[in-house]
Amino acid sequence: MSLEALKEQAAIKAVSYIQSGMRVGLGTGSTAKYAILELARKLRDGELTNIVAVATSIDSERLARENGITVLDLDPTPLDIAIDGADEISPTLDLIKGLGAALLREKIVEIQAKEFIVIADHTKLVSHLGQKAPVPVEVVQFGIQSTLQRLSKFGEPKLREKNGELLITDNGNFIADLWFNHPNPTALERDLKGTLGVVDTGFFLGMAARAIVAHEDRVEEFSRA
Amino acid sequence: MSLEALKEQAAIKAVSYIQSGMRVGLGTGSTAKYAILELARKLRDGELTNIVAVATSIDSERLARENGITVLDLDPTPLDIAIDGADEISPTLDLIKGLGAALLREKIVEIQAKEFIVIADHTKLVSHLGQKAPVPVEVVQFGIQSTLQRLSKFGEPKLREKNGELLITDNGNFIADLWFNHPNPTALERDLKGTLGVVDTGFFLGMAARAIVAHEDRVEEFSRA
Repeated sequence: MSLEALKEQAAIKAVSYIQSGMRVGLGTGSTAKYAILELARKLRDGELTNIVAVATSIDSERLARENGITVLDLDPTPLDIAIDGADEISPTLDLIKGLGAALLREKIVEIQAKEFIVIADHTKLVSHLGQKAPVPVEVVQFGIQSTLQRLSKFGEPKLREKNGELLITDNGNFIADLWFNHPNPTALERDLKGTLGVVDTGFFLGMAARAIVAHEDRVEEFSRA
Repeated sequence: MSLEALKEQAAIKAVSYIQSGMRVGLGTGSTAKYAILELARKLRDGELTNIVAVATSIDSERLARENGITVLDLDPTPLDIAIDGADEISPTLDLIKGLGAALLREKIVEIQAKEFIVIADHTKLVSHLGQKAPVPVEVVQFGIQSTLQRLSKFGEPKLREKNGELLITDNGNFIADLWFNHPNPTALERDLKGTLGVVDTGFFLGMAARAIVAHEDRVEEFSRA
């Protein structure tokens, strides 16, 4: 089965947890896209009603609206559920996110969800964070060279580009992808967030309640212990 | 003597520390403005030569350029000196800054200065930080209501307005002025910077090397112990 088909399988399973009347957080990226489309289908088919959503990116907001989902601005009211992809999922359900560049909005939305479900194909499972992917770090544009110098204490930062130019996030910042070798993501996250010029990081620690991971032969589901 | 005259006195004294050939950080605000104008005068009069500057705001960059100062983008090369105002100065030379809304750029520039000189009139001296002023906290626009809710754990946050609209910083963020009652600015700064949605705070702790404070009858100068 193609990776795309696996992503869609995980997304469809996650959307089965959404019930009518819920407030839903919509993720960003190639896997979350399938959850948005499945939610839209269920609304169209009348399988779900009375759903309002909050989106984690301008792209997701557009996709949801185009498909008939009611999207509100975020306010402090808790969300019932949020569904999003991840770039790495550890055995303890800690995540690296942000290869889609929406990490900050994703974190701000998903921290408000009573249940945050992470969805992925099996290639995103790792034994420890940083095994395959760098952690994206959202950094302010001003003084970027000095901020990169501060980040180099923790690993090798590389500014992300898109179409040959530096990528700029929905919040007007740059993304530095940081390759790191650090045994303790919690300590690294705290040190990175405390660094001058850093807005946030792609570590999502202790946030996901459930993971739905599609393998070739089965859909695996596991919860935070 | 007017407060304006006192601010100018402190600024002129600080600029006397600048020597030809130096790289200089230019502050932002009503006191720092006088330092920019005095530096420009010295360059025009030939008292200083071969100065390059880095500005902490778009406004200061414009003022400096209009007055003939060479302004460069910030790079990681250390600055020899930086001169800026403050909203509160404690006896140990810790500061609250950012009523001018340029706190993040100020901090990014001034942390690179070999010597950061803070200049003020005497009304800015306090026995402890938070005595007269709130600490400005730069926060991302997205999810602002939930970020304010997180900040309310530490005090009373109020979004800053300008001309009847929410103020937006040079970095595209909001400023929440946080009235706080906390005995330990170092701990508070760490907790605030670690808060989701916070980009930076107006606490400048352990950064200023020298203060130049104009009183009615004298200009006081003191250094970090």
